[in-house]
Amino acid sequence: MRFFSDNAAPVCPQVLDALARANTLDTAYDGDRWSAQLDGRLSEVFETQVSALWVPTGTAANCLALTALCPPDGGVVCHREAHIQMDEAGAPEFFTHGARLMLVDGPGAKVTPDAVEALLAGIRPDVHQVQAHALSITNATEYGLAYTPDEVGALGETARRHGLGMHMDGARFANALVHLGCAPADITWRAGVDVLSFGFVKNGGMHAEALVFFDTGRAKGVARRRKRAGMLFSKGRYLAAQILAMLDNDLWLANARAANAGAALVAEAAGPERLVYPVETNEVFVKMSADEAAGLRAAGFDFYDWAPGEIRLVFSWDQTADSVRPLADAIAAL
Amino acid sequence: MRFFSDNAAPVCPQVLDALARANTLDTAYDGDRWSAQLDGRLSEVFETQVSALWVPTGTAANCLALTALCPPDGGVVCHREAHIQMDEAGAPEFFTHGARLMLVDGPGAKVTPDAVEALLAGIRPDVHQVQAHALSITNATEYGLAYTPDEVGALGETARRHGLGMHMDGARFANALVHLGCAPADITWRAGVDVLSFGFVKNGGMHAEALVFFDTGRAKGVARRRKRAGMLFSKGRYLAAQILAMLDNDLWLANARAANAGAALVAEAAGPERLVYPVETNEVFVKMSADEAAGLRAAGFDFYDWAPGEIRLVFSWDQTADSVRPLADAIAAL
Amino acid sequence: MRFFSDNAAPVCPQVLDALARANTLDTAYDGDRWSAQLDGRLSEVFETQVSALWVPTGTAANCLALTALCPPDGGVVCHREAHIQMDEAGAPEFFTHGARLMLVDGPGAKVTPDAVEALLAGIRPDVHQVQAHALSITNATEYGLAYTPDEVGALGETARRHGLGMHMDGARFANALVHLGCAPADITWRAGVDVLSFGFVKNGGMHAEALVFFDTGRAKGVARRRKRAGMLFSKGRYLAAQILAMLDNDLWLANARAANAGAALVAEAAGPERLVYPVETNEVFVKMSADEAAGLRAAGFDFYDWAPGEIRLVFSWDQTADSVRPLADAIAAL
Amino acid sequence: MRFFSDNAAPVCPQVLDALARANTLDTAYDGDRWSAQLDGRLSEVFETQVSALWVPTGTAANCLALTALCPPDGGVVCHREAHIQMDEAGAPEFFTHGARLMLVDGPGAKVTPDAVEALLAGIRPDVHQVQAHALSITNATEYGLAYTPDEVGALGETARRHGLGMHMDGARFANALVHLGCAPADITWRAGVDVLSFGFVKNGGMHAEALVFFDTGRAKGVARRRKRAGMLFSKGRYLAAQILAMLDNDLWLANARAANAGAALVAEAAGPERLVYPVETNEVFVKMSADEAAGLRAAGFDFYDWAPGEIRLVFSWDQTADSVRPLADAIAAL
Repeated sequence: MRFFSDNAAPVCPQVLDALARANTLDTAYDGDRWSAQLDGRLSEVFETQVSALWVPTGTAANCLALTALCPPDGGVVCHREAHIQMDEAGAPEFFTHGARLMLVDGPGAKVTPDAVEALLAGIRPDVHQVQAHALSITNATEYGLAYTPDEVGALGETARRHGLGMHMDGARFANALVHLGCAPADITWRAGVDVLSFGFVKNGGMHAEALVFFDTGRAKGVARRRKRAGMLFSKGRYLAAQILAMLDNDLWLANARAANAGAALVAEAAGPERLVYPVETNEVFVKMSADEAAGLRAAGFDFYDWAPGEIRLVFSWDQTADSVRPLADAIAAL
Repeated sequence: MRFFSDNAAPVCPQVLDALARANTLDTAYDGDRWSAQLDGRLSEVFETQVSALWVPTGTAANCLALTALCPPDGGVVCHREAHIQMDEAGAPEFFTHGARLMLVDGPGAKVTPDAVEALLAGIRPDVHQVQAHALSITNATEYGLAYTPDEVGALGETARRHGLGMHMDGARFANALVHLGCAPADITWRAGVDVLSFGFVKNGGMHAEALVFFDTGRAKGVARRRKRAGMLFSKGRYLAAQILAMLDNDLWLANARAANAGAALVAEAAGPERLVYPVETNEVFVKMSADEAAGLRAAGFDFYDWAPGEIRLVFSWDQTADSVRPLADAIAAL
Repeated sequence: MRFFSDNAAPVCPQVLDALARANTLDTAYDGDRWSAQLDGRLSEVFETQVSALWVPTGTAANCLALTALCPPDGGVVCHREAHIQMDEAGAPEFFTHGARLMLVDGPGAKVTPDAVEALLAGIRPDVHQVQAHALSITNATEYGLAYTPDEVGALGETARRHGLGMHMDGARFANALVHLGCAPADITWRAGVDVLSFGFVKNGGMHAEALVFFDTGRAKGVARRRKRAGMLFSKGRYLAAQILAMLDNDLWLANARAANAGAALVAEAAGPERLVYPVETNEVFVKMSADEAAGLRAAGFDFYDWAPGEIRLVFSWDQTADSVRPLADAIAAL
Repeated sequence: MRFFSDNAAPVCPQVLDALARANTLDTAYDGDRWSAQLDGRLSEVFETQVSALWVPTGTAANCLALTALCPPDGGVVCHREAHIQMDEAGAPEFFTHGARLMLVDGPGAKVTPDAVEALLAGIRPDVHQVQAHALSITNATEYGLAYTPDEVGALGETARRHGLGMHMDGARFANALVHLGCAPADITWRAGVDVLSFGFVKNGGMHAEALVFFDTGRAKGVARRRKRAGMLFSKGRYLAAQILAMLDNDLWLANARAANAGAALVAEAAGPERLVYPVETNEVFVKMSADEAAGLRAAGFDFYDWAPGEIRLVFSWDQTADSVRPLADAIAAL
């Protein structure tokens, strides 16, 4: 059994069904009837008028978002372990024409207002130094921690005070949300977020993410840049349909709950001593010796060696108690 | 009935089936068992060892190809009506970091060796002028004309003589091929093509094209640039599976034959007088007065007004004699 | 005697003197007392409040100007023989991050409103096609022709109607101006120009041009981009001092008159039959057989072979009747 | 008296004289007789065949150098306080089309092999993470410390082992060299440096630096990129002449000795307790209370407040014992 990544999981059946239902002739690009529904449906989800685009990957969502917040000669404040810094191969620099990622530290890959303030205080406001234009945070973080509405709000306040646009990488937005039990608006626009990369792929989608602008003025030009980046699919209806299918009947929330539940089960089995971070969403980082890890692998479990003495387990939308129990038992028995 | 674009057509059922079959857990990105087959399967198709990548759009394929042939300070020779010049929103400049498209003219959007020679002759080989590094042609062209093996070969010879890499935009490669009745190799590497954008989306795919390097040395770094462009899908298996499904049992050729047959039927009905270009593939450009066009539309046919007095009809993989006959009859009756 | 280029001429003595006078300790970059005078002095010259920066080359001036008028995904309309297209090695694409030059034709490298209109009419206002954002003209043109106030005004009106910013490459602005006998304002902001590359180097300077914004809002961010382009000289006072020295006592106009007078003398000697274009400034294009050209070279005159049967002669600020007379006589004697 | 920056100092008289001597007609761009001497003269200085270009600023030199070592999707390892990171406004990202600076720490802005190794060890060699391609060090560092031949050699060895090209920012190369008392070759190519930004401006020049390639293969294409960056001056002879004048009679070394001597005088007066770093070149960082600093300013000395409790004093080529003594005495009297 593999607990490598939520990217490895299959697509949920409702998404496949939606593809089949969308399989008729319609207008190309984003002129179809599915794409036309995105703004409306996402405005309902977020309880405010949003401007939304489908994009195929989280990296595309993140980096197009950054182009809306930061000029080529500007900087984007983010955590040293943020996905945009660690795992996107320089895509932020590519899409922004060379803007700079400005790194802050913090446990669990969480950015704090103090860390942002300290970084900004070190920048002279002259033409010799790159000036910060945006703040990007990931919710849930790369370690599965959820920023609360208050935490996002405090960062939003910091961003506003310094004139920074604010982006949220929501590759695991649903997982954070069901943990927090708040409204989607509470950790986005109400807390100061201007644009969200709203992830569906890790949550059961195939390849469609939504780029959601709460500051709709910021959306100006993004559709053109999506095209210029080679991402205006000629059959865009199949992307819009995936997103709509995930929103229908709150499938996105149900999927996230299933994934989080899997993680919780294993976290409980592991016990607090072994957990590197509190388990809030669908990722579990477990302290484990190399021998223990080898034993688990021998028993048929597969996962990522995160750091010396630490493994990472990621749970997916298709997880059930039955599918996770053997892992939980094996860890409990260590 | 709509004859707007082959982009508007649905996906063919074998592709949908392939998505369903690929819907299991596998390694993320391009580490899965479907992606692993691309090089082999495409090497068979082209009768030589190729290096291939899936990409989601034709623009992505074209522009990643150009990054392999042209540095930021270079130029790419292409036709004034090439898709990369007319319909990709500056994506070539974006992906290449500012390389310049160098335009030549020619009927039917066909590039000729003479046109290339004349353009190159006007460039001083000094640091003040942008130097050409690549030649890009589209087969079939934007007007549905197929370059023959000899025509491609003559351009390949010209490119080689001037040290230009050669790219073929094959958004409608299959349509050209079944018209020509030659081997895929005959209009690609045997004729001097270094890299091909091998199109499937217009031919019944959903969103997967193959970027095929015949000069496998040119492929170096392209996988990394695909990632940096936000196009390394985390569930890449669904792209590879589409391509493989299209190759199975030569579905790609069958689909192209169906589309071309639709066009041929209408072309015959229209008669040579009305045709702007000979109809070789799946596009028909018909001379038609505004009144005639309005009449066709009133009869339920939809299409693109290409130019004053000209309409464009595009036929798709799902076309049958039954679906095209009414249009053919209506045009014959004009 | 060389009539190759006004770039080849020496620097005029007042400029060298100014460098010597500026040779004291002062604040670095552009914080010095000379740089502080640029806005004021140029506002006097142009009879309106301008925002000005020194830059070292005409290419730098042109391309930084374009960054203020055109986004990376936009286009700049210019003549096919414009310096930015022909002789700047892709610098416009580099500085703008890939904006596209959109070429129009016209005799004498002059852009006309009709040509601009025709080009713009061919652009669909959708995300698939690059949209024009700016118009760039060169005054005097690459063939030494001066746009009159009316001609510039008509282009300015066209630009405004289509929402294009307007740039003037004034590498030989002084030469055009003294030919026209109008005020600097008449062929710039009064006629719709937003930003001027105000050339001094070809007119007796060493390496300082002024980038002059009439639409001062457009100047926002340009100083930062100058720095980011590696062009914020640490000893900027030596650039500002050159420009101020050229403005003192209208040296710039006197120099241009001298250069133009040299050209006029030779043009008269050549006679209208031999002139490819009317001679309005300091360039003379003369029809001449290869034998005649060889004869002139044998007599000690050096120049550029422009095209088959055409030579180019360029006259400089240091030209006197005595220095030009021998060439005039030799041409008259052909 | 100002001890702000060596950028604020005037140009040394031999450089002004050289400009006057170069003030004749010659071929434009870099086709003149001065530019033609650069390779030869610098090859003598470095005791090996080099390929050299003049550029106008240190930022230009550094960033063009980086384009020769690092692709757009790569990374450049440098110190967190390196000039390319702190004071070039994102020019490295601009010139390289978005390569990333990868920062290491170390006292005195010195990079160590261990720091480089640790950084590289944290990069997974996959397409998701930016890969390092170059190492850039500054000699003397931003704190005036000189890397010894052994120190450079150890870094060169590290770079080679990891396939990194190596760049040296030599804005104060001369100051480092006269401190070390070694040959220019000893801290450059013999120690593994591929390309040097050889600074003259801070050392008495006006605006000309030399970009020196020891790995002459790396120089390929740089002249074209210099042009594309708007830095191919049309009257390049005035830049080449400055460099040659500085090399004549080892003026560059004499100037650096004068500047270093000024620093040494003040360092001795300050005493080791007050020095933040050992004083090896022409910069002195002195611990000083705000009151003390205010007192010095009241006495007519001007300088940069570097950090709380620290001031920076920079000494120039035109410093003499007489010009520095009052400052030394004032500091000694604190």
